Amino acid sequence: MPADEIGKRSVIFHKENRGKLEVKSKVDCRSREGLSLAYTPGVAAVCREIEKNPDSAYGLTCKWNTVAVVSDGTRVLGLGNIGPLAALPVMEGKAVLFKSYGGVDAFPICLSCKGEDEIVKAVKDISPSFGGINLEDIESPKCFSVERRLIEALDIPVFHDDQHGTAVVALAGLLNALKLVEKGKDAKIVVSGAGAAGVAIVKLLHSAGFGDITVCDSSGILVDSEKLPPYKREIAKITNREGKGGKLSDALAGADAFIGVSAPNIVGAAEARKMADKPIIFALSNPVPEISQNEALAAGVAVFGTARSDLPNQVNNVLGFPGIFRGALLVRARRISEGMKLAAVYALAGAISEKELSNERILPLPFEKGIVRRVATAVALEAQKTGGARLKMDEKEIGAELDRLGLD
Amino acid sequence: MPADEIGKRSVIFHKENRGKLEVKSKVDCRSREGLSLAYTPGVAAVCREIEKNPDSAYGLTCKWNTVAVVSDGTRVLGLGNIGPLAALPVMEGKAVLFKSYGGVDAFPICLSCKGEDEIVKAVKDISPSFGGINLEDIESPKCFSVERRLIEALDIPVFHDDQHGTAVVALAGLLNALKLVEKGKDAKIVVSGAGAAGVAIVKLLHSAGFGDITVCDSSGILVDSEKLPPYKREIAKITNREGKGGKLSDALAGADAFIGVSAPNIVGAAEARKMADKPIIFALSNPVPEISQNEALAAGVAVFGTARSDLPNQVNNVLGFPGIFRGALLVRARRISEGMKLAAVYALAGAISEKELSNERILPLPFEKGIVRRVATAVALEAQKTGGARLKMDEKEIGAELDRLGLD
Repeated sequence: MPADEIGKRSVIFHKENRGKLEVKSKVDCRSREGLSLAYTPGVAAVCREIEKNPDSAYGLTCKWNTVAVVSDGTRVLGLGNIGPLAALPVMEGKAVLFKSYGGVDAFPICLSCKGEDEIVKAVKDISPSFGGINLEDIESPKCFSVERRLIEALDIPVFHDDQHGTAVVALAGLLNALKLVEKGKDAKIVVSGAGAAGVAIVKLLHSAGFGDITVCDSSGILVDSEKLPPYKREIAKITNREGKGGKLSDALAGADAFIGVSAPNIVGAAEARKMADKPIIFALSNPVPEISQNEALAAGVAVFGTARSDLPNQVNNVLGFPGIFRGALLVRARRISEGMKLAAVYALAGAISEKELSNERILPLPFEKGIVRRVATAVALEAQKTGGARLKMDEKEIGAELDRLGLD
Repeated sequence: MPADEIGKRSVIFHKENRGKLEVKSKVDCRSREGLSLAYTPGVAAVCREIEKNPDSAYGLTCKWNTVAVVSDGTRVLGLGNIGPLAALPVMEGKAVLFKSYGGVDAFPICLSCKGEDEIVKAVKDISPSFGGINLEDIESPKCFSVERRLIEALDIPVFHDDQHGTAVVALAGLLNALKLVEKGKDAKIVVSGAGAAGVAIVKLLHSAGFGDITVCDSSGILVDSEKLPPYKREIAKITNREGKGGKLSDALAGADAFIGVSAPNIVGAAEARKMADKPIIFALSNPVPEISQNEALAAGVAVFGTARSDLPNQVNNVLGFPGIFRGALLVRARRISEGMKLAAVYALAGAISEKELSNERILPLPFEKGIVRRVATAVALEAQKTGGARLKMDEKEIGAELDRLGLD
């Protein structure tokens, strides 16, 4: 379906459904007894219990399963700074994906403030009701400091999905693509883009043990320098080990893999041909990629990853965040650690067996059964080591809980 | 059931249900097509539509039907300042009452900040996702200025239910009680308590045309003076028309009606006996009233109103807020005007026919059919005159919409 046509149909779909989410009561409170148990006078005892023991809120309220999907609307999809109200359909959409895929009760919180301090303050202020915070579509570089400060301030997971969700899914796809072309962690990786996704991809590649990473921003290869802003300096220090400057085309010469999260049409066929043997390209700029699938394949690219849902190998965040938060919430984690992100990466990559693996199937589709279970289980187990989990659960208990939540 | 027993059962009830609310997706997004309509790429067109025309958010997102139930936990039930986390069971309970009674999608927002400026800022910051704000259990006098400033700042209804919800239901009950004893708006009314509920009751009595009101706080009869804090001065100016000082017992001598929203056991049988013929007492302090039902009836009180759910004539906010917000949301009101509160009062009072009216039935029970419809219809009609409604709807259209929402 052409993009225009999908857009028109989507507007009608939103009108007919009057938005996409609703709040439901899980209890009867339309009787005298129900009212006295769910509300006054009975609820006073529940309040007192939580006052005595704050962690009991996880067992007595909705907190255990709620996530705020928070955005200030400054960088929404490919639309840019459209403001909080116009961002609401996306945040509401994210919330229904959380429920449909992960069984998580997520609620869209669109902020009318834009300053870093203000966003941090607003999210801290509303945090008591929530078991986790998913930051979304907040512009770079503000998104880095907002996330860091909230992680430090709060004792619930805070996760900027445009960074880490993208990084988790991209890395899972890359691991499978490298398996296909029989290369390993010594592969030479080029990342284009030093925004939210690019920075997170580089950090996660580094955490996963990749040693030869080069990042390019719009000025070319990133070289460590005191003039760089802190978030770029941080990745400059763990990339470009030879310290050479140059353009994206210089970086691509001999590269084994290219991950683009930057701008349309910045890679040509000639550059793709100068890459190493059996090159991998993930061209994730959306809606127009860094290089088109056709051009890339014609230039000899072995595996092509995309952001588009109508092509194979879609790097889709829906493969990540529902399972990551599901796992974190299951054990009442305090944070989403680097280890939990990597656990999600390996779980997702492992969802495709070696037999199934092909250059048109490096990642599962979001609708496939068992994906969220795999990711959530791995994340929940790792959260007990590095995520400050408040609950202990073994794999069997996690499985029983996922059954109870009706996740397939 | 004794209070202890209800409390214990309520804790078990909350544990077994794991809280009381959940978020549900109204759409299919577990298919390629669903995903492309509910989320990317289709949703971008919906965002653009709202960017062009902000009011279209009401038709395209959850905003039309969502209310934030906001508390800082500083004055929760009779428990006092127990903090936002311990307040969550109450706010979550309020949210499920909103849905069960009014078909409103409400979400609990418990704030970890307590300063007036901070609360105002936090609510303004999160307001874009919501079609209305219900303030709850915020201590007095902060609650007055928080509400006033938010009403001025936002273009959606802001309503502190502990003030106006209580006032609406109490006044509806009083009107019916006065009918029973054949008295009118010249009745001498004494209100005890100058906190959130007391202040709002006085103002609404005044708006409804009652001319002889006396308020008492813990120091006795309120007399206008420059030394009073502004919120007390405001009600001092419209009460105590003879300007006499004295104690509560002085005020009660010859009074036709007493409404207590103050403290336990402050009215004795002797004082009740000194009231006018066929006196009315609403002793709404909770859990221990200003005077017990038994004592009041023995002292010759004609109609006794209570906060307790196990006695007749319960002044229960559940009779008010679901219909008030339902009506306001139906026509996308910008505020809840004094006229809309009064419309709710008359609709509620009118729910009991003259034939049915008795000293044990001045108000309907919350579970009775048709209550929310009555209130919502009256409020929605009035909102088109004084509430800045964005939609025009006649009574028939309102009825069809309430049918569509499944309200009985």
